[in-house]
Amino acid sequence: MPKINRYVDIDSVEKEAKKDYIDRHSPFIHCEKNAKKGEKFQVRIQMGNEYKHPDDFDHYIAYIQLFDGETLLSQTTYYAGAQGSAPAHASVIFEVVPTKSKMKLVAMSYCTKHGVWESDPVEVEVGE
Amino acid sequence: MPKINRYVDIDSVEKEAKKDYIDRHSPFIHCEKNAKKGEKFQVRIQMGNEYKHPDDFDHYIAYIQLFDGETLLSQTTYYAGAQGSAPAHASVIFEVVPTKSKMKLVAMSYCTKHGVWESDPVEVEVGE
Amino acid sequence: MPKINRYVDIDSVEKEAKKDYIDRHSPFIHCEKNAKKGEKFQVRIQMGNEYKHPDDFDHYIAYIQLFDGETLLSQTTYYAGAQGSAPAHASVIFEVVPTKSKMKLVAMSYCTKHGVWESDPVEVEVGE
Amino acid sequence: MPKINRYVDIDSVEKEAKKDYIDRHSPFIHCEKNAKKGEKFQVRIQMGNEYKHPDDFDHYIAYIQLFDGETLLSQTTYYAGAQGSAPAHASVIFEVVPTKSKMKLVAMSYCTKHGVWESDPVEVEVGE
Repeated sequence: MPKINRYVDIDSVEKEAKKDYIDRHSPFIHCEKNAKKGEKFQVRIQMGNEYKHPDDFDHYIAYIQLFDGETLLSQTTYYAGAQGSAPAHASVIFEVVPTKSKMKLVAMSYCTKHGVWESDPVEVEVGE
Repeated sequence: MPKINRYVDIDSVEKEAKKDYIDRHSPFIHCEKNAKKGEKFQVRIQMGNEYKHPDDFDHYIAYIQLFDGETLLSQTTYYAGAQGSAPAHASVIFEVVPTKSKMKLVAMSYCTKHGVWESDPVEVEVGE
Repeated sequence: MPKINRYVDIDSVEKEAKKDYIDRHSPFIHCEKNAKKGEKFQVRIQMGNEYKHPDDFDHYIAYIQLFDGETLLSQTTYYAGAQGSAPAHASVIFEVVPTKSKMKLVAMSYCTKHGVWESDPVEVEVGE
Repeated sequence: MPKINRYVDIDSVEKEAKKDYIDRHSPFIHCEKNAKKGEKFQVRIQMGNEYKHPDDFDHYIAYIQLFDGETLLSQTTYYAGAQGSAPAHASVIFEVVPTKSKMKLVAMSYCTKHGVWESDPVEVEVGE
């Protein structure tokens, strides 16, 4: 409360509307599985894989956060209508600098109509 | 993951260090129980009741969010060291304009060392 | 570019539409003239004195920042429609902790249609 | 007030310390010169070209904003120490969706010690 919504494999979901609802609200993490300590590492977050999200007044993606475990690395805030006012996969590429031997990345996002959503976690091995 | 930490009545906690840890990381909502539709309503959020929180490099309160149910009303971001670099109860007063007959307020906050914390919910009746 | 718009005394402005435009986009700082070092000090920022601002899709106040000189103390972000979707004076009360003998407060705000606006500066004497 | 600092060609600057100061605080926009209407377009912002910026308690890059003319497209906020606590070029890649025939991109950034900085503007032609 707010509820933390989590992604569910949409192949396991029957109703098309629900597949759409879950997919377009879920942040997905796209990155390599290995990083180098002290070197920039790109982490792309995209809302939805197959279904686009509206960019309307009462229904837009307002922010995407990137956590490493309990640590918030960065937060990108969007402004209503600034992404083109058309359905799209809101996205951003964070460039983080790993300092520990492992990262456990999780993205959180907020839809102004359907609340807070959490990505599946992604583990990244960090070498010297 | 991140874990959503929640306030626990510290009278039920034995260890002083744990009382301190829980209290100073918890956002508390201070407001009247009744509001008027369309009129400004003050909601004060304060971190901790009895124990203050550091404002250090690797340990400061970075933001406070105010939700009404699933809806994020506002987010206040702080900058490391800008609150005086001394232990304090980080706080802000949001002035919200209720439009529905009831608000279910919840504050979320983020400590750069101890992650995400959620307040107890507070219900506000909204009259005409 | 972006242009930093500044408040102009609207008594010196002839056209009603321009008075409205300037007033409703300008952040105003409301606070005492004297503060105490290390003690919380309330700084209320309100958009507009006499004219309210829309809270529409392509036209809302998206954030208010409070600076002390060149130092950003805090930033409050709003979400389209979350303030009631009716014209209003967006506002927030920051609770800052002065550490120096003087503060030079300036508020900056951003309207999604009319850009960045800066308040008149306010000086606060800080005693022991 | 806050002063808006602007990039100056460091080849025209004599003192090494001043070259460093100007370069590491300036946001630079890296992107193609042509975009397609309605299609994602990557805009990379990097702080500094040749000189890295600290990520210390009282001295870190706290946010980067991307404007198209007077319109704020997105803001990325960083947290002290979360970028590795070592000098680096803070950076982010925004993925924007152009809707008009031209974009006039400007990046604004904020250093917690040296205030607000503005990039040189970059014009992007947007074709169908």
